[in-house]
Parts: sequence; structure tokens; C-alpha cells
Amino acid sequence: MTLRPLWDARGVAVVGASDRPGAVGRLPVQFLQRYGYAGGIYPVRPDGAPVCGLTSYPSVAEASRQGPVDLAMIMVAADKVTAAVRDCAAAGVPVVVVCSSGFAETGEGGALLQDELVTVAGELGVRVLGPNCIGTVGTATGQVSSFSPLFSGERTELVPGGLGFVSQSGALGYGAVSLAFERGLGLGWVVNTGNEADLSAAEVMAAVAGEEGCTGLLGYAESLTDVHALARVVASGVPVALLKAGRSDAGARAAASHTGALAAGDTVVDVALRRAGVVRVDDVEELLDVGDVMGLVPSVRGRRVRRVAVVTTSGGSGILTADAIETHGDRLELAALSAATTAALEEIVPAYGATGNPVDVTASVMSNPALFDRALTTIAGDPGVDAVVACFCVLTGKDVDDVVAALARVREATGVPVVVVRTGADHLAPQAAATMRAAGLPVYTTPERAVRALAALSQMARPDVRERPAPPAVDAHLTADMGEDELKATLARLGLPVPVGRVAADRDDAVTAVAEAGGRAVLKAVVPGLLHKSDAGGVVLDVTAEQAPEVFDRLAAMGGEVLVEELVPGGLEALVGSTDSPLGRVLTVGVGGVLTEVVADVALRLLPVDRQDVEEMLDETRLGRLLAGVRGQGPADRAALVDTVLAVAGVAATLPPGAELDLNPVTVLAQGDGVRILDAALATADEAGD
Amino acid sequence: MTLRPLWDARGVAVVGASDRPGAVGRLPVQFLQRYGYAGGIYPVRPDGAPVCGLTSYPSVAEASRQGPVDLAMIMVAADKVTAAVRDCAAAGVPVVVVCSSGFAETGEGGALLQDELVTVAGELGVRVLGPNCIGTVGTATGQVSSFSPLFSGERTELVPGGLGFVSQSGALGYGAVSLAFERGLGLGWVVNTGNEADLSAAEVMAAVAGEEGCTGLLGYAESLTDVHALARVVASGVPVALLKAGRSDAGARAAASHTGALAAGDTVVDVALRRAGVVRVDDVEELLDVGDVMGLVPSVRGRRVRRVAVVTTSGGSGILTADAIETHGDRLELAALSAATTAALEEIVPAYGATGNPVDVTASVMSNPALFDRALTTIAGDPGVDAVVACFCVLTGKDVDDVVAALARVREATGVPVVVVRTGADHLAPQAAATMRAAGLPVYTTPERAVRALAALSQMARPDVRERPAPPAVDAHLTADMGEDELKATLARLGLPVPVGRVAADRDDAVTAVAEAGGRAVLKAVVPGLLHKSDAGGVVLDVTAEQAPEVFDRLAAMGGEVLVEELVPGGLEALVGSTDSPLGRVLTVGVGGVLTEVVADVALRLLPVDRQDVEEMLDETRLGRLLAGVRGQGPADRAALVDTVLAVAGVAATLPPGAELDLNPVTVLAQGDGVRILDAALATADEAGD
Repeated sequence: MTLRPLWDARGVAVVGASDRPGAVGRLPVQFLQRYGYAGGIYPVRPDGAPVCGLTSYPSVAEASRQGPVDLAMIMVAADKVTAAVRDCAAAGVPVVVVCSSGFAETGEGGALLQDELVTVAGELGVRVLGPNCIGTVGTATGQVSSFSPLFSGERTELVPGGLGFVSQSGALGYGAVSLAFERGLGLGWVVNTGNEADLSAAEVMAAVAGEEGCTGLLGYAESLTDVHALARVVASGVPVALLKAGRSDAGARAAASHTGALAAGDTVVDVALRRAGVVRVDDVEELLDVGDVMGLVPSVRGRRVRRVAVVTTSGGSGILTADAIETHGDRLELAALSAATTAALEEIVPAYGATGNPVDVTASVMSNPALFDRALTTIAGDPGVDAVVACFCVLTGKDVDDVVAALARVREATGVPVVVVRTGADHLAPQAAATMRAAGLPVYTTPERAVRALAALSQMARPDVRERPAPPAVDAHLTADMGEDELKATLARLGLPVPVGRVAADRDDAVTAVAEAGGRAVLKAVVPGLLHKSDAGGVVLDVTAEQAPEVFDRLAAMGGEVLVEELVPGGLEALVGSTDSPLGRVLTVGVGGVLTEVVADVALRLLPVDRQDVEEMLDETRLGRLLAGVRGQGPADRAALVDTVLAVAGVAATLPPGAELDLNPVTVLAQGDGVRILDAALATADEAGD
Repeated sequence: MTLRPLWDARGVAVVGASDRPGAVGRLPVQFLQRYGYAGGIYPVRPDGAPVCGLTSYPSVAEASRQGPVDLAMIMVAADKVTAAVRDCAAAGVPVVVVCSSGFAETGEGGALLQDELVTVAGELGVRVLGPNCIGTVGTATGQVSSFSPLFSGERTELVPGGLGFVSQSGALGYGAVSLAFERGLGLGWVVNTGNEADLSAAEVMAAVAGEEGCTGLLGYAESLTDVHALARVVASGVPVALLKAGRSDAGARAAASHTGALAAGDTVVDVALRRAGVVRVDDVEELLDVGDVMGLVPSVRGRRVRRVAVVTTSGGSGILTADAIETHGDRLELAALSAATTAALEEIVPAYGATGNPVDVTASVMSNPALFDRALTTIAGDPGVDAVVACFCVLTGKDVDDVVAALARVREATGVPVVVVRTGADHLAPQAAATMRAAGLPVYTTPERAVRALAALSQMARPDVRERPAPPAVDAHLTADMGEDELKATLARLGLPVPVGRVAADRDDAVTAVAEAGGRAVLKAVVPGLLHKSDAGGVVLDVTAEQAPEVFDRLAAMGGEVLVEELVPGGLEALVGSTDSPLGRVLTVGVGGVLTEVVADVALRLLPVDRQDVEEMLDETRLGRLLAGVRGQGPADRAALVDTVLAVAGVAATLPPGAELDLNPVTVLAQGDGVRILDAALATADEAGD
């Protein structure tokens, strides 16, 4: 595999190596030696002087005569990088890590250099990591092909493991890696992607996921373009958690100025990652907390992890855990224990404990291994329990061993995942963290962190990655220069419910058209570029044939055509629309009409969507409740709205890049009476947004 | 001060002491000795056998002949506690810590014992901490009058400091204390209040706040009754942060079953704490994180801490910090740096850095103390900057000293608070945490945690504790048996805007009443107990004099009276109401009418409120935007609504306990046209809620 040398090279060349202590060109050589890398280490420098006691070579080509070189770190000035890449290509190196800065991150001149680098490398068939990156690590091989100061730390040790860690940011990424190692979270592969001129974080993650022994991936990204690659990783059975920075407007601006990449709106990122089955996290600690629970994924794959039993020796921890479970109510709930379980617990737990969920077994039960075992087995054996959170506070010496043994036994016996909350200082039981880790018991300092990780486990157990059928091919040909009448005619032709109506040719024709529409009609001015035509007086409701000529004249005077439509009775007003994004075309459904901006409640999905998606979109918004019928109103025609949304999704899939479709209001009538698309607009990217 | 012996006693008696290793009755004696308590230690046990080498006494009274005893820990069986309290009273002990369990936490029998304990102690003038508590600690005096296993830890050391820590929960509380000590957060006073039969957490916190050197308070509570005590603490200048558990329904139920206390709704707790100026936190780590920033409060008291500059050597950390600042947008914002600042930074920061905010000074600037100093001074000196967040990742050895020195200097020179993010393992710079703490630089692992703490500092700098005027006395006399007509008549008498109208005596009188109402009226059935009368057909709109008799007959047939009111034109529908809570009477304002349940958007405040409160309530909800005018509608009469809400608040203050006032809809007409209370209902606690 082309990218394997990033963490498992037979030989590494360091181009721009130096022997000066502290020089960045010395660090990778030093680190490869220090961490026991067994492959060839080839410092490359023009003068051939030794580096860290190793012979150096004037070129990579020269070095490659000594043995295979399949990774080169390039650490020379930016303007010399392309030449170095040519040297690497000549030596048959398939992938290079360009550590040098001075590229797109510095402005226009650098961006030109970066373009040249990518072009040359592409022509030569060399893949490029970076530029402006700190390098990579394979912990199994001791391959620290990086110059991060982390590896200078006197007490730094690699902690190998099954997780990969891929970060767009170098400093933050290696900082996070140091925190992972510190908590004993083992990483097998660490990659910093820098400017991502060629290799993206997503592509690297996919490559790491393909490595033997990879059990999960943690990532940090500022821009995100290839969610599909991540979706394939998840679908292949490797869980992925991603810290996507730039959630806020200010953060997105900072990210854009940092990476130069155009960001998708954050809500789009959210839905795209959810669709891909990727767990999205909000900070570095949460990323590592999710990493700690990834080891449990194989034991729960395909299973529901929703109903949580809480076992505690502290009433307070139990309450906080219950609070946290409700906070994560989209994925978790407090399990309702069966009557049999409660009865069994009554016999174990003393009166000052609690046998409801959270179960306060009390310190006296916990300190009696036989009783604690029985209590745990009873709870985890309840068929209504999918997972257990066990909470402790000041846990000291011997207690830890007993507790861990009991928890590990119950986990083994029942297959129910157990996560532990230990709200107490490490020094009280210095071995506790390692013992629990070894027993497959993720442990967290606070209930909130444990439950958050469990919620991630719930998602990873059954990621929402079902195949959505491609929408049926429709021959829409919608264009932004169409007026409302043409748009609606096209939608009608595609089977979408628009009001009966047509453009009136003149004032007399308006009278005829009103009659055709049923005797009472709506007249609308169709003027290119006129937004919010209601506000502008461009819509007149309930016009009779008698009034038609006068109204026609008034609207015609606005400079466009006049559309005559049947009068649709009042219903619930929804909006259905579609916009484009760097991650794909987006469908939007929500509360429409005059309340659009005020209620501001819409759900988004990337296309394609299926019926279940649309039902979920309705339920995510207040539209769900409105459709069920507010005070004194019967239910609206939800099924018809769902059909219409699905049809719109099919049409949206045919829109040209950048086009924005806006159907608002879509009136939802009483059950059985269907829906009507009362207004329709199509804009190109330039016009969109007012 | 009566409660001082809880942490600074001249002598401590331990009633129920034991010499058996590991016995809870031995632990406090052992701990008082181990942690260097210099006062008298008096084991009390019937047989007079020595405990930990100390003479024991058959009673507290006997012990008190040896020297002053002003604290007794009572560790005997529940049914012997009252007798022990009598013994303490005889010895003149002002306050006792009842560690024994077997009281209200175990059920009815225990609750009776607890009542007896409180009664006897009250009669004897002895204050009681507990029962069912783990005790107290004064770190300055080494007074560990507690049996928490924390103090058995081989490596446990007390870390004295200016913060008090008061927890209702024992296990969780001492677990949190261990975490505070572990991070070097010094605590002067630690109290576990247990069942709070007598002393509440709030009362204890107030007492701790009165101690010399107390700079802040951290608390954990499951029930909360005396927010006023906390408000007084904050007003006296001592910041308070509280972890109030039971935020969720499930958590509140668990808390209620744990403490037996009736909980106020969580939103009410929120507004009550905000009004008191108390920082509310969601987990133990956040509580300690806020504790870490309390030391900065004196330096920013009364100042605005809102506009944050971010200084980083990692683009990623900068973006995440910007994200976090937006998340806490109610209190913080990213500072807009002045042109002069940016220009000055351009001269310092290399091209691959960033001079906007977040400012990426780059690692090269950071490693040059003179340049880093200049950059920091420039940023912190910008008049648009209230606070600085400085982010680092892998920070090693010597770098730490330089960075800390620079940060401390700029903080000293400008008075601007600085918080630090260090996303890297401790072992990379083992002295860093302590060095930064000593320099007054709170340090956090992630941007999110640092910004969250800074948001708390913003609140603590200027807590919202302004005095609200008591509402003018009104003579309302509203009672739950009043019909809508009587309620409205009373409201009208109090100057509130209700539609013109009256009850019609018969069908003929209805015709007259319609004429009085302006010729077109609304007729309403006034039937006791009829809720949602619109849904029940009890409201007929736009009735003419001609139609009045027939409509009157129809409504009269529903079994009550018929109210005839002027027809009020359509407006924006709000709701204004008031409910009772354990924390005081609550005012509610929000979106009303048919959208009440669907939009479900209301703001709450405890009474009294002033104009600023009401304005803020409107802006917190969608009502604010609706009042400003949605598409095509002009602005509504916001000022009239504010006046009405203030008047309703005055009326609400007169309502009997448990009464619930519901004015919905309150129609807000166009600017200048005022508001009208279209419907009014008053229920008692039993009836309230349908």
C-alpha cells in the first residue's frame, strides 16, 4: 500500500538533516534512533557530514543505493522542496513528508510554490504529506519520522495500540497524542497532514483503517471535503471520531485563514458526519474519551446500546449520571429495571441505599465482594439493560482490585459494556487506571464524561450508515431564469402538488383564469428578482372574477407577468428547499411561511434521503408537533408532506452546482387533503441569500 | 461565630470512638493526629479504653473538664444520637457533626428519629451538621474532623488555600476535594452537610464566606432552598460556584429519593442562581475549573470581562478557542483588535502566523522572549481587549519558564486577566502547572475548559445582583374561584388592559352589551373548570347585535355565564403568567396563543423584576423578534407589553402560595395601540397543570 511507509517504512531519508543539537533537521534522525526504529536511517545533506553518528548522503538517490528508502522527510527551504521531490522520485520513493513551511499558509507566493510542488509530485507519481507538517509516527516500529518536541521529552515513551490518530494540526495533534499516551491510550499510527496539498486527513485515515490491528480512528480537522472516505471506513467496521474545528463563525473564519479552505456550514458538517457514522466531538479531551471506549465496539457491534443502568456508591454521582443520560437523550436513556431485578436488589442493598435506577448499592455492599458481585450480576442481567455505568469516588488500594474484578466478571458473563466513573485523585489508587484499562473498563473522572463516551459507543455500535436508494431519475431542467409560473409548471409536470393556475395574458384573460381556478383566486406578480413579493404587495388573495381586471392591472404594473392560481385554504406552513455545499447537496425542511425566520427551526440532510430520513427531519423540528395538530386543530396531512419532500429531493438532485431551491410556503392541509406548494423560487449561488 | 468550630475548634470530641484499626470511630482521631491538629482530641467511649494512644472519656461532659470542647463528632448508632447531643449540650458544645446514618435517608422510621434529633438539639441550642455526613476539615489547622477514606491515602496531603468547599454529598464531595488537592487548588474549609436536618449547605457557605481569607466558595447541592443566603455571600464580594445536581427529570427524582427534598424546577433553579450571582456548573471538573479562576476575581471586580484576545502558537488551538468563545457568547466575544494593534503585530509575527484574532504568534516568536513579550503587551494593551487566552500545546522545560514570565509580566503591567490552555502531557514540563498557579495564571487542558472558566470569571466580575425595587403595593385579592369576568374586572381596576366587556344578564342584555362593545363583539362562556374554552366551542368571535341572542343561548347552555367583550383586532400573541416555586414566586413571559405549546419558548424570572429584567425576558425568547415585526408586519407595541408585564408582576406578588396566574393570549397590537389581555385564568396549586 502506497501510504504504509508513513508509519512502516523500510528506510527513511531525512532531506536537510543537520547535526547541530536542537536543529529541526537533526530531530527526526535522533528520534528514529531513540525510539528503536530498525529500518535504514539516511540523513541527506550536501556536505556528506555525519548526523547523530550516521553517515549522510548528498542525495536520496545516493542513499537508496545503501538500502530501500520508501519514505523521505523533506526539511529544506520551501524553494528547494520541489527539487528534493525530484530527487526522491529518482530514488523510487513513493511518499514524502514535506515538513518545510513557506507554502500556502504564508500567502500567495507560497500558494504558487505549493501548486508547483503538487503538480511536480503528481507528474512523478510521488504522494505528498504536508507541506507544513510535523510528520508521522508508527509506534509498533518505533518509526518517529517527526520533529515534534514531544519526542524530546525526557519521560516520553511511545504507547502502542490499536487506534490511529490523524491531525491536520501539528502542534495540537502532537499535544493530543501526548495526552493520549499520558492516560495510557495506545496509538498505533500518528499522522499530521499539515496543509494537505495532496494527501487529506480523510485519505490518510482510510489508509490507516486498512492496516492490520486498527480498531479505531481519532481525527482533528479544520476543513473537511471527503466525508465519503470516512463513511467507507466506518462501514468497514472501524469506528471514527472526529474533532472538527471551526464550529463557530469566528472559528470557521480563523480556520479558513489558517488553511485557505472554504468551509461547509457547520450544520452541514454535522449531518454529513452523522450520515457517515462518524462520532463528532467538541474538544481534545472528548476525542480521547471516545478513544477510550472504542475498545468496546467489537463487543456491541450491531446491538442497541441505549438503556443504561447506573450503579453507584454515591447518591450524588448517581444523580449526576442520570442528569448526563438525559442530556444525551438522543442516544441514551435511564433503564427501567424489572420488578424482579428490584426485588432481588432489595435483598442485597441496605435501607439507606436505593434499588431504583440509579442503584445506590452503598459502600458496605461494595466492600463485600460476594454481595457486590450479586448486585452487579442482577443489574447487568436485566434484559432491559444495555449498558452499565459504575460510579465510585474515593476508591483506595485494595478496593480497586475487588471492584475491577467484579466489574470485569460481570462484563464477561453478560456481555454488557461497563464504563466506570472514578471521581477521585489518582494517587489514592495509583494502579487503578491501568488495572481498569487492562480489564476493558474505560474510566472517566466525571459522570458527564463517562456518559458522553457511552453515547458515542451507542452511535458506534450501530452507525446510521444504511444505504439510501438513489432517487428515481427525473427530467427536471430547472433553471434560475425561470419565473414562478414556469417553475411551478415544471414541478407540476414532475407530479408535485402546485395550485391550479396559469399566467393571464391580459385583463380579460385574468377573468377567465379566475373562473378556471374555481371562481376565487390568488393573483401574483411574477417579476424576476422580486423577493418577498407578499411584502411588496405583489400577492392579492381571494380575488373574484369581478375584481380580476383591476387587480391584474395593478400587478402587471409591477413590470412582470401575472399568475392566477386557485385559492388554497389556510393550512400549516412548511418550507422545503435545497442548497449546495462543499460536502454535497443539502435538503432542508422546516417551519415555513411568516414564521420562517422567527421560529428558525429547520432540519438538514445531505442527499440522497429516504422516507425514514424525512420522517426524522419532521420530528426534529417543531413541524412534527405542528403536523400532529395544535390546540383545536386536527392533524395535518403529514404523509402527503413526506411524499412531497421526497419528490423535491429527487428534483434537487438534478439541480446545477450552486443552485438554491426554495419552496416556501408549502401549505399542509388537513389529513387526506394533501399539500400545495404555494411559492417556488430558484436562485444561483450568486443570488442566493438576501 | 457558632459554626467556626466546624473547621477551627479548640477541642474536638469523637463520640463513639474506637481503637480497632479501620473502624470509622478510629479514623477521625487518627486523622486529627496525622494532619497535625493542635487542639484537644477527646475520644469518647463508655469503657474509657484509649484510642490511638489517647485517653478516652465516658462522656463529652467529662472530656470537657480537660479543656475546651467546641466540636463533637457523633458516630454512635442512630437511636443513641439524641442522648449524645444532650451530653454535648451539657458540656457546652455549640455544634455537633452527626456522622451516624439511619435517619431520613432510610425511610419513615429514620425520619422520625431525625425530627426528634432536630427538636432536641433546637431546644438545647446545639447546631447540628448532618446526620449522615462524613464530617469537616479546616486545612489551616489540620483539623480533619472527618472519616473520609481520602485521608487514609498514603500520599494524601492537605492543600490549604482561600476557597471553601461545601458539599451535600459526602463521597462525591471528598472525591472532588481529592481532585482539587491533586491539581493544587487550595481549600481552606471543607464541609459535608449530609441530610441537612438543621444546617443547610447555604448556611454553611455563608459562614465560611465570613472567615478571614476566604476568596471563594465551591458547592455541590442536590436540593436548594435558601438562595438568598448565597446571594448575600456574592453581594459581600465572595464569588460562589455551585454544582446543582438533579437538572434532569430523572436526576431530580433520584435526588428527591436521595434527600427527600422537594425540588424546584430546574429552570427556576437556573434563574434563581443567576439572580443570586452564583455561577452554576454542570460537573465536578467544571466546578474545580471555576475554582481555579476565582483567584482572578479581585483583579477584575466591577469590570467588564467580555472581549477576549486569543494568543496561540497553534492554529488549531486558536480555532477551537474561537469556537468556544462563540459557545459562551452570552458572556464572551472574540475581541476586535484595533488597526494599531494589528499593524504592530505585523512587525513581530512572521508571514505563516496570523495577526488577526486569534493571533498565531508562531513557535518562533514564542521562543524569543523579547518578541513574545512585545506581542503579548501589544495585544493585552489594546483598549478593546478585556482578557487574554494563551494557548500552547507541547510545551517543554525551559520554554515554560519564559512563557510564564512573559504572561505574568503582561498581566502585571496591564491588569488584564490571562488564562492558559496547555494541551500537552504534564510530564513534558512537570513544573509548569505549579509555576503557572504561583504566577496567578489558571491553566487548562483544552480551549473549551479555559473559555468556560473565563465565562465564569466574566459573571463573577460583575454578578447580576442589582437591587430590584419591591413592586408597588396593589390591592388585588385575586382568588381561584373567580370567573374570567371577575378576574378581568379586577385586572381592569388595577389598571391592566382588558377588553371592554361585561357579563350579559340574558339574551336581550347580550344585544345591549354587543352595542356597548362597539357593535361587534366576542361572546365567551364563563364556566368554572372549563379549560381551553376555544377548543370546546365556548368562544364565538365577531358577533353582531343581530346574532347576539342566538349565540347567547348557545353559550349559556354550557352551564355558566356569558361574557360579552369588544372585538380586539388580531395582534401578536404573548403569554404572561406566574407560578409558585420552593425558591419563590416566578414570572413567566413568552410566545402565547395557539403557538404556546408548539413554539414552547418562555423566559422565567423570580420576583421581583424591574424593567431591564422584562426587556431581557422578551429578548431571550422569540417574542423579541416577533415584536420587532416579522415579514411585512410593522413592529408591535413592545413598550406597552413591558408595562403590562411589570404590572402583572406586581399583581403576582400578591397571589396566595401555590396560585398560578395564566394570561394567554395577551394580544400585542401595533406600536401605539397597546396590548389587551384576552384571556385570564387563576388556578390553585392542585388544579394547576392540565
